Amino acid sequence: MPECQPGTVILGVVDPGVGGPRAALVAQAGDHWLVGPDNGLFELVLRRSDAPVRRWHLNVAETGISASFHGRDVFAPAAAKLAQSLAAGTDPIATIPGHRVQPADTVPRPGADWPDDVAEVIHIDGFGNAITGMRADRIPRDARLALKGAGAGIARARTFCDVPPGTPFWYENALGLVELAVNGASAAESFGLAVGASVEVVGR
Amino acid sequence: MPECQPGTVILGVVDPGVGGPRAALVAQAGDHWLVGPDNGLFELVLRRSDAPVRRWHLNVAETGISASFHGRDVFAPAAAKLAQSLAAGTDPIATIPGHRVQPADTVPRPGADWPDDVAEVIHIDGFGNAITGMRADRIPRDARLALKGAGAGIARARTFCDVPPGTPFWYENALGLVELAVNGASAAESFGLAVGASVEVVGR
Amino acid sequence: MPECQPGTVILGVVDPGVGGPRAALVAQAGDHWLVGPDNGLFELVLRRSDAPVRRWHLNVAETGISASFHGRDVFAPAAAKLAQSLAAGTDPIATIPGHRVQPADTVPRPGADWPDDVAEVIHIDGFGNAITGMRADRIPRDARLALKGAGAGIARARTFCDVPPGTPFWYENALGLVELAVNGASAAESFGLAVGASVEVVGR
Repeated sequence: MPECQPGTVILGVVDPGVGGPRAALVAQAGDHWLVGPDNGLFELVLRRSDAPVRRWHLNVAETGISASFHGRDVFAPAAAKLAQSLAAGTDPIATIPGHRVQPADTVPRPGADWPDDVAEVIHIDGFGNAITGMRADRIPRDARLALKGAGAGIARARTFCDVPPGTPFWYENALGLVELAVNGASAAESFGLAVGASVEVVGR
Repeated sequence: MPECQPGTVILGVVDPGVGGPRAALVAQAGDHWLVGPDNGLFELVLRRSDAPVRRWHLNVAETGISASFHGRDVFAPAAAKLAQSLAAGTDPIATIPGHRVQPADTVPRPGADWPDDVAEVIHIDGFGNAITGMRADRIPRDARLALKGAGAGIARARTFCDVPPGTPFWYENALGLVELAVNGASAAESFGLAVGASVEVVGR
Repeated sequence: MPECQPGTVILGVVDPGVGGPRAALVAQAGDHWLVGPDNGLFELVLRRSDAPVRRWHLNVAETGISASFHGRDVFAPAAAKLAQSLAAGTDPIATIPGHRVQPADTVPRPGADWPDDVAEVIHIDGFGNAITGMRADRIPRDARLALKGAGAGIARARTFCDVPPGTPFWYENALGLVELAVNGASAAESFGLAVGASVEVVGR
């Protein structure tokens, strides 16, 4: 996380199991802190951290909070308190109010067995660009990507304006992931893509 | 409004009658302040306030403002000035610039005759969850809710992960209202719900 | 820009040519500063400025930034640094880090030949209101606007609640532009409007 200042607290909540048995996580990755559900949301950040990682679980109170909105009632207040403690130089873990905190370094990380890259469409944005779970720096720059209906495969371009309108291409998007696009059109429509569609790296 | 700090100013604008005869409201409910159109938007907040309520109307200038965007040109500046005055400890009502302010405690409140709860779907969110206007703490926890096509009625659950995928349930949502949901699916689609659909509390 | 405080820095990014040959612009219009792609985005602001306009181009680094997200990697950091320098009273142009800055006052402005007003629908909002590119103060207040299928033309109203439900009208919107609307309905649906539909000012 080189873009974040030391001491940054990152609050992340994608939490389909809210109110269920998944734990509430506070994690430290070097100078950065993460707060959210312990459901794998932060797995790749923790896995790829160069700095040492530590983890704690919050024992969430049973009463006085919504069963379906821990983002508001658990995680955001905990992240705010953490940021206050870090700014004040006090022990950030000792002082999260309303919750008992217990070390979780030895608890298995949900998602620890997930792959490093996913050769599938994982998101389609509002323009019809199809984002994959593949890191672009793991793919040869002259590789072609095969999709059903894309014939000989799709070649790489640096950005949209490097190809004529209507031309499909793949590129390294602003997250560092392989993204399929068509200049001026919807890649999802052009190739009938949906989340889960598999993407194959073929010969150069 | 226990979650808000004393002195909080709440700006709220849902204003289909903007530019028309509805008045511009500043209201005080104990330590909290509300600014927005006097069209009933704040009725339930004012009605349920434990603290004394006071109200004022702003006489909005005729010129120099948009007829269709009082949120930007009237309410937001008034709320900002109010917050400044409260922070400075000066009389918050005397100093709202650009408007004459007149007491409105004796003016009838639009919406004063509205019911306390509405046994209807009042909003459908992006996941197809159907929010009703019924406070959950007014409904027995073992009540069932009858909808057209829902057969014997829908039982309560605490949150999504307490029922199997595909199962409909009602629960107390994060606003304290009864919400109809299906784990992993759209309640609106499953039961053909639209805003205005009536919801009936049936035997336990 | 009378609503903005002196020293305001405005960051604007609508940038279909990102990563291509279009330049990166920093412009000064009197006490206000603009940062974004030099693709015409700020043309009307610069054209209509009463205060003197100055322009600079940033020579963007080739490495270490995304080819497709200059908003994040070029313009936002430059705008932040500019605001810091203005606040500190130091030369705002000398100190934009990571980029060489060169004067561009004599470089032709993209969009310099664009018309002052566009008699077309340029945007349709979520309610189906159709915003045109015509400034309302250039149109007689008793003018009627002709659309295909709108018969004798549409008359002006001050705001929505000045006409009965279901009645079409045009009005000066909160941006000062002519907007076509129907009280309680979608103008786009009512008249089959899409972006690019031409609008004609007809007899009073």
